[in-house]
Amino acid sequence: MSRELQNLSKETPRIDALERVTGQAHYAEDIYLPGMLFARVLRSPLPHARIRGIDSSAAEALPGVRAVLHSKNCDVIWSSGDRHGRRRLFADPARFVGEAVAAVAAVDRHTAEEALGLIRVDYEELPHVLTIEDALREGAPQVFPEGNIEEEVLRFETGNIDEGFRQADSIYEGEFVSQYLNNAQMERRVSLAQWDGDRLTVWASTQGIYNCQKDIAHDLKLPLGKVHVICHYMGGGFGNKNQGYDFDLTAALLARKTRRPVRVEFTRHEDFIAVHGRWSTQQHYRIGYKKDGSITAIHLKAYSNMGAYLRSHGNLQGPENYSSPNIRSEIYRVYTNRSCSANFRSPPAPQGVFAIDSAMDEIAERLQMDPVEFRLKNAIQDFSADKKPLTSNGLRDCIRRGAEAIGWAEKRRQYSGQSGSIRRGIGMGIGTWSGGLGPSSAEIKLLPDGSVKLMVGVTDIGTGAKTTMALIAAEALGLPLESISVVWGDTDQTPYSPGESGSRTTGDTGLAVIEAAKKIREQLLTQAAAHLKVRREDLALRDGKIVSSANPGQSWSIAEVTATNIDAISAAVTTQQPDDGSKSGKTRLSFTAHFAEVEVNLETGKVKVLRFVAAHDSGTIVNKLTARSQVQGAVTQGLGMALREELIWDGHSAVPVNNYYHGAKPMTHPETPQIEVIFVETEEPYGPFGAKKLGEAGMVPTVAAVANAIYQATGIRFRELPITPDKILIAMNPSRDRKEAVALPPG
Amino acid sequence: MSRELQNLSKETPRIDALERVTGQAHYAEDIYLPGMLFARVLRSPLPHARIRGIDSSAAEALPGVRAVLHSKNCDVIWSSGDRHGRRRLFADPARFVGEAVAAVAAVDRHTAEEALGLIRVDYEELPHVLTIEDALREGAPQVFPEGNIEEEVLRFETGNIDEGFRQADSIYEGEFVSQYLNNAQMERRVSLAQWDGDRLTVWASTQGIYNCQKDIAHDLKLPLGKVHVICHYMGGGFGNKNQGYDFDLTAALLARKTRRPVRVEFTRHEDFIAVHGRWSTQQHYRIGYKKDGSITAIHLKAYSNMGAYLRSHGNLQGPENYSSPNIRSEIYRVYTNRSCSANFRSPPAPQGVFAIDSAMDEIAERLQMDPVEFRLKNAIQDFSADKKPLTSNGLRDCIRRGAEAIGWAEKRRQYSGQSGSIRRGIGMGIGTWSGGLGPSSAEIKLLPDGSVKLMVGVTDIGTGAKTTMALIAAEALGLPLESISVVWGDTDQTPYSPGESGSRTTGDTGLAVIEAAKKIREQLLTQAAAHLKVRREDLALRDGKIVSSANPGQSWSIAEVTATNIDAISAAVTTQQPDDGSKSGKTRLSFTAHFAEVEVNLETGKVKVLRFVAAHDSGTIVNKLTARSQVQGAVTQGLGMALREELIWDGHSAVPVNNYYHGAKPMTHPETPQIEVIFVETEEPYGPFGAKKLGEAGMVPTVAAVANAIYQATGIRFRELPITPDKILIAMNPSRDRKEAVALPPG
Repeated sequence: MSRELQNLSKETPRIDALERVTGQAHYAEDIYLPGMLFARVLRSPLPHARIRGIDSSAAEALPGVRAVLHSKNCDVIWSSGDRHGRRRLFADPARFVGEAVAAVAAVDRHTAEEALGLIRVDYEELPHVLTIEDALREGAPQVFPEGNIEEEVLRFETGNIDEGFRQADSIYEGEFVSQYLNNAQMERRVSLAQWDGDRLTVWASTQGIYNCQKDIAHDLKLPLGKVHVICHYMGGGFGNKNQGYDFDLTAALLARKTRRPVRVEFTRHEDFIAVHGRWSTQQHYRIGYKKDGSITAIHLKAYSNMGAYLRSHGNLQGPENYSSPNIRSEIYRVYTNRSCSANFRSPPAPQGVFAIDSAMDEIAERLQMDPVEFRLKNAIQDFSADKKPLTSNGLRDCIRRGAEAIGWAEKRRQYSGQSGSIRRGIGMGIGTWSGGLGPSSAEIKLLPDGSVKLMVGVTDIGTGAKTTMALIAAEALGLPLESISVVWGDTDQTPYSPGESGSRTTGDTGLAVIEAAKKIREQLLTQAAAHLKVRREDLALRDGKIVSSANPGQSWSIAEVTATNIDAISAAVTTQQPDDGSKSGKTRLSFTAHFAEVEVNLETGKVKVLRFVAAHDSGTIVNKLTARSQVQGAVTQGLGMALREELIWDGHSAVPVNNYYHGAKPMTHPETPQIEVIFVETEEPYGPFGAKKLGEAGMVPTVAAVANAIYQATGIRFRELPITPDKILIAMNPSRDRKEAVALPPG
Repeated sequence: MSRELQNLSKETPRIDALERVTGQAHYAEDIYLPGMLFARVLRSPLPHARIRGIDSSAAEALPGVRAVLHSKNCDVIWSSGDRHGRRRLFADPARFVGEAVAAVAAVDRHTAEEALGLIRVDYEELPHVLTIEDALREGAPQVFPEGNIEEEVLRFETGNIDEGFRQADSIYEGEFVSQYLNNAQMERRVSLAQWDGDRLTVWASTQGIYNCQKDIAHDLKLPLGKVHVICHYMGGGFGNKNQGYDFDLTAALLARKTRRPVRVEFTRHEDFIAVHGRWSTQQHYRIGYKKDGSITAIHLKAYSNMGAYLRSHGNLQGPENYSSPNIRSEIYRVYTNRSCSANFRSPPAPQGVFAIDSAMDEIAERLQMDPVEFRLKNAIQDFSADKKPLTSNGLRDCIRRGAEAIGWAEKRRQYSGQSGSIRRGIGMGIGTWSGGLGPSSAEIKLLPDGSVKLMVGVTDIGTGAKTTMALIAAEALGLPLESISVVWGDTDQTPYSPGESGSRTTGDTGLAVIEAAKKIREQLLTQAAAHLKVRREDLALRDGKIVSSANPGQSWSIAEVTATNIDAISAAVTTQQPDDGSKSGKTRLSFTAHFAEVEVNLETGKVKVLRFVAAHDSGTIVNKLTARSQVQGAVTQGLGMALREELIWDGHSAVPVNNYYHGAKPMTHPETPQIEVIFVETEEPYGPFGAKKLGEAGMVPTVAAVANAIYQATGIRFRELPITPDKILIAMNPSRDRKEAVALPPG
């Protein structure tokens, strides 16, 4: 970093830490409005069923029940529930176990729940499919009349794949499988809706207040300005809370019908199945390579199980992380009668990188090359897969510094040729993170007392975004952090934001904050020069005072320039597309290399991660404290995905059997090893003060690093996630029946 | 009106009528926050007392009590409680009965009230004064060491007053008295405070969210950006809710101490004495006039009783309504040990105009001129009293059209020389309204679906301001009213506003709305021209579509220009001082003439107002429906002031005895006669679409018109308000002891 930074690249506690840890922060479920009703949702017990009829008369007659909605009295389409707009708010037919069938609003929770039991639904059961294999079988039950495969195939092609394989000395082939797992964020779904006349306010737990606004307005046919969405605090989402949701619409419709505020709440069980999780995949890799270790061709053919509706793209990260001149990737999206698959922190990456970085380790081994050396040779370098120059690239520094930190060379040697039942291994993986989601906005007011209101349409989803935005504003304005008040999370209060996803906030909204700050400084100092009869170029803003460089002792308060006019100095900036380098035809990527050291007990099949090093190039780190937390949280999720997590549907009934924390077993912090985070702060010309994206990058190669470490420890290549003790035991003792082990009850 | 208006000058129901009449509107007292505490205030039972000590230990020990504040543990100054900053949040000494001495926050209302009774205050009683007369007496008890008269005297002088009296053929002298009366708005005081870390949110019932923010920030020594004030609905204020108040500070301090949201609520009794009412006055007029009916000099010497602290100016309207070349006005503000006096709808006017228009009626009678003719001759014409040209003046049209509507000439004749105990009379008065409160701001966003978000920092205090602002925006944008959503009443959501007082919203903020709308149209059509490759001058905005004048069939949606970028078209405007004509050295005034027809029962002393005509020149009427309601509401208040209202303090204990609705007897709508409102829509060059101020003008000459009508009916000139039955009976039968009648119990 050549610039001298006052506020950034330091360890700064969150500006809202106090209210978060003392219970003063108000989440959607902390809001109680006078006369508020509680709503509960009735869900389909069948994976595929037509709904012949619904009798809700007994429920409606229950004292305390105020309204019942279902497919026979409400035909609203929840359009962000399916990219093709095929999803009704209340299912008919139901396409997965847990799909909403009806909703009840009542004076209290217990009455609402009792009323659910009084609704009589006449289901006509239809045949169903759960797996990619079954869905593709000839004559399989059809989730949609159009078939079980999404018509549009995701294709990427560069170079000449056939020529690439011709140039290869050898060809690697491997098949990888990953499972569905839920985002499992702490905060359950809550949506509270209230109408003021024809204007709707929704307190949502959302990553994207403006997405939520847009989707609700669209589905309820309201003008955008009539929908007000508030999300002041939220307890995690990990990609699972970035649209308008069915429960938002349900709350709004019930509130309209009852003329009362209505809160829809999910139980933890509902939360696991009625929203979405990560798409499970089958990935087939064919990779051509030369004796010298260079890669000539990568061909990925994969299937993503999207569940019952198409809610996200279903893509996979992988081939683009390596500098092969010839790449072909084709990804087929498959429909099944399961809960939907959609975005979960770095949506296409951990399962994709698990596959390619397992494959690359296998190739390195065949070539007798060290995995670190192999990646230093082949990792993406100056250009992206689509041949655009990269704005900066610290990946090789990440690989080298991570390897050094974990003691790669020595441990790799030490752990080769072990015996006994306790074996150790070391492994690595690499990843990238890109993205850019369109316009970013920020608004700043400099108040007469020298304090600042910074308005950004972001929600702080746990990343510390409020603090990050305040730090960037303080830096750009030349004011102390304490003078900045952030206004956030309210469509009536803040400018547009495309939502906190794609790790976009620091890198994109940060640029808008800097632009607004520049305008503020310029206005203030120009007005000051005119008002104080001082040359503009002699004035600067420092610590809330206007200071003169011509006369060092002299300073003026901001109020001396603005008088009492609160609106005197304000600036609003919208960048249609923040300049992340794309205007110059470049691509801005973040990079990461992860290293895991594991111990495998061959008698119990248990894997213990002893140490983890995560090296990241995200340019300048705005706040090292929260950035490190981001990576540690992401790695923790990656470890769970590698070793434990999978939502299991009963093969016969299609009922999810472990849709709760204890059953789903997400990794918790006390279970994780020491996670060491290294920041490689490359000189990035396009980020705000040189910052690039971070949050999602933290999870990209975690699974791959663990899988590769287990391979070194056991000599067994696990190609199916999660790598659970039963799989390890079966692999160590191939005579045991694999099916039997997999069918062990969860938990 | 020469312009063709699409939306204005019509009868438009309020855009929030539904929520107001169905109970869906949320006032401050409708907000319940989790864990919220209820606070109650202990008030001084003595009019003047030092506080030797306070023992709050028993109150603090009461289960459920969370905090007790009083002068011994809190020395915060409530600076907007007194213009000299002498007022402590908790009194020491107490200077009037009802001044706050302590406050309790507890888990429920009953506990808080019980705790008040457990606080032991050791008072040292001091001598007190209640009336102007007593306060000015030699050796009177002193409210402040500096004396009972405010040092600064309000003086206005134009011409040469001595020369004016020399030119006069005759000189009139008269003394008038008006009483204290409370604003008596429906909604009691409620303030709810909540801290998020170091950021304070206050749900207030306020006419000025930004005044409230500024005052709270000042008194609690917080940066402006850390104070967030919300007022979405409020149930009237009439000038009584336009600052930060002691109860706002109390709520904030108790919330900080308890770390819980705290709501301070007043009872109706507290509401009547602990805030403020209209200043009572003694006014002495000396007026010189010629035989031809022209006025040569007006000299007003008056005293305003400001109560225990100076919270407003204490001025009086009067001399400036007549075009006398020589005017002297001197107003002395007097302190007494009574509740404070400050702003109440048209603060200086009804009591001032009662005096001058009674005097003018007397002079007209002496000259044997008709009161209408006398005013047509003498009323303010082309210049204001300070010799500035008026931007427009429809006063004479108001007088003529009002006189015609009430049938002045015929009734005046008919009611002269009545006998019997039922007598009728007709009377009139005239008034003006000016003002201008500094910067006005508005922000507009044109959303991709063609809907509009209009952000204005106003609260809708009952005037229909939200609807007015929406109408002006619709007119200026060329969009239908339905497409406009107004965002208001929240310092985090809206630009600055100086508060809804001085009837400033339509005339001042309306101009900022028009400016912002112009910028929006310009941006949109410029972007459209570039994007659609059409000439800018061929494009217009109509009904939410961009239309081509070159090709009448052709139109484009706004989304075709802005894509999905919600921030693409937005404009924020702040006018440091809206151009109300003052930039050209002119004065913009609204005008009014009121006419009352009354029936007086000489046996009961009861006055019945049979008919009332209010003619108003407020330029273009933006919304005739709410404008008429404004005038009718104001006249209703004026009738109460003329005939019934007076807060009475017991002469010995200085305790207010009728501080509740039934005792204070404000006039209610069912009691009022038919109130006919006439709008004289003059061509005003400086208002928004020609609009001028209205709300307060509606009350200015009401009292005078009634008093003059009673004079015609009875032949008795009442120079003291209110003109109650007891006063009429005493006047009809002068032998009865006046004191005895006044001392009748209220109600």
